[in-house]
Amino acid sequence: MNPLLVVGSVAFDTLHFHDASHPRVLGGSATYGALAASHFVPVRMVGVVGKDFPDSAVQMLKERKVDLSGLEVVDGETFHWEGRYVEDLSSRETIRTDLNVFADFRPKIPDAFQATPYVMLGNIGPDLQLEVLEQITRPKLVVADTMNLWIDIKHNELCNLLKRVDVLILNDEEARQLSGRHNLLHAGRELQAMGPRTVVIKKGEHGAMLMRDDQLPFCMPALPLESVVDPTGAGDSFAGAFLGYLARHDDITDAAMRRAVVHGSVVASFCVEGVSINRLHAASDDAITERSQTLRNLVQF
Amino acid sequence: MNPLLVVGSVAFDTLHFHDASHPRVLGGSATYGALAASHFVPVRMVGVVGKDFPDSAVQMLKERKVDLSGLEVVDGETFHWEGRYVEDLSSRETIRTDLNVFADFRPKIPDAFQATPYVMLGNIGPDLQLEVLEQITRPKLVVADTMNLWIDIKHNELCNLLKRVDVLILNDEEARQLSGRHNLLHAGRELQAMGPRTVVIKKGEHGAMLMRDDQLPFCMPALPLESVVDPTGAGDSFAGAFLGYLARHDDITDAAMRRAVVHGSVVASFCVEGVSINRLHAASDDAITERSQTLRNLVQF
Repeated sequence: MNPLLVVGSVAFDTLHFHDASHPRVLGGSATYGALAASHFVPVRMVGVVGKDFPDSAVQMLKERKVDLSGLEVVDGETFHWEGRYVEDLSSRETIRTDLNVFADFRPKIPDAFQATPYVMLGNIGPDLQLEVLEQITRPKLVVADTMNLWIDIKHNELCNLLKRVDVLILNDEEARQLSGRHNLLHAGRELQAMGPRTVVIKKGEHGAMLMRDDQLPFCMPALPLESVVDPTGAGDSFAGAFLGYLARHDDITDAAMRRAVVHGSVVASFCVEGVSINRLHAASDDAITERSQTLRNLVQF
Repeated sequence: MNPLLVVGSVAFDTLHFHDASHPRVLGGSATYGALAASHFVPVRMVGVVGKDFPDSAVQMLKERKVDLSGLEVVDGETFHWEGRYVEDLSSRETIRTDLNVFADFRPKIPDAFQATPYVMLGNIGPDLQLEVLEQITRPKLVVADTMNLWIDIKHNELCNLLKRVDVLILNDEEARQLSGRHNLLHAGRELQAMGPRTVVIKKGEHGAMLMRDDQLPFCMPALPLESVVDPTGAGDSFAGAFLGYLARHDDITDAAMRRAVVHGSVVASFCVEGVSINRLHAASDDAITERSQTLRNLVQF
């Protein structure tokens, strides 16, 4: 089966909700992305952690067939982010960010990973994402995620990156900010003009929109959920499962991309049902298949 | 073909947008609802206007086969609402409301209308909506629209009304307010428990959700539009086309309700593309059919 390379952050998150706090739970874009993708294909992960990174997390990833030979363990502490969600979970504020060992992170792609056909550039600085591309053989598909921080402080690097990625995945707010357009159709086209042939705009509880070349978009509502517990990592999970699905079927046609959006959406729906990676990790393949069928029924008419 | 009865307000709206103002254009829940429904079935309209209501508007409605024998013309001026939209059209504020002849409106259903099988209770006070139900033979389907104002000031009347309607159509904010639940699945169920077997929650640019009995919901994204000009009347147009579709096919099964949501969404998409009723009125049957096909492609995977 086609392997998938994911590069991103590995972190501890301290999460505050209106009714509970969870100190130092496992997080990071590479962690969520790798776990999500691991439901579909073998995953190769590149990132950095400190000496405090627990064996239990390493074991959990290995059991999911995530190859950790690209995970550097260096002196110091693992990246730590602390944030607080508003009661309805619609937004969050950062309380503190301790970059720790992540401050000096320069991704090093092991030789054995350099020809991986499917590459997910998880949410880290676009300069680091570009460094990844410099080290690898032209893959079949490169998917990049980003965030408002990079749009603000590393705009030029992000523009350079966009010329070299096939799929850009970002949320509606980021799409508007990066494109300068409010209307999401216009925003998507503007982003396509910056490089990526395919743009996926995530709208959280409102679903996702896929724009490809100059075709009509594909729009998928999110599965209405009984309970949303923790939105952290939903975007990374979406991206990981999206690319994982494409890698598994080794298919990057329009039809496959649509099904990949559905699977990204389904896996993200598990992610938000538990704190940290708990539900994402526990979701069975059968449960994922069942939920994609539910999503199909949801829009059937 | 099954006729449809619509009762609601007929108004002049003065609309302010960031780049233009439109004084005293045609509006009102009955106007939008009737025009939307008229794309599907003959419409019987009940409402009130003042002597200032122009012949041109009467003619326009008659040309769309709207039976105006229930439209009272009384001394005084027609209901007038003035509002201002924020630049991205996501919200609006009321500048003034002149009830005028609407202040004393008590709907009188002409004898010839009393056995109409499909009834749309457009957005007017729930006490007036109840008065309509008192005057008619039990119809095949009653759809009611409402708004935050009535949830605030006529809560008891609204609760009484809900026990007697089949379908409640409202937006997400209103659903949350009336049910006291943030999660829309929970909100929908709570509203169903208040009476209506079917609840349709409109989410504006994010589409609509249909909940029926205890089944899984139907979720439909909105068509992404190149240009949204004026959201006024979108909800009324949705409701009118929803019910118009059901009346035309004389079918209130689950499958028909899903297609009715699609047609409601399509007709509302035309409504918002023009100021006042302009695009809603001008949309051809072919254009409506074409857009429902586009909506089908939009969610196909």
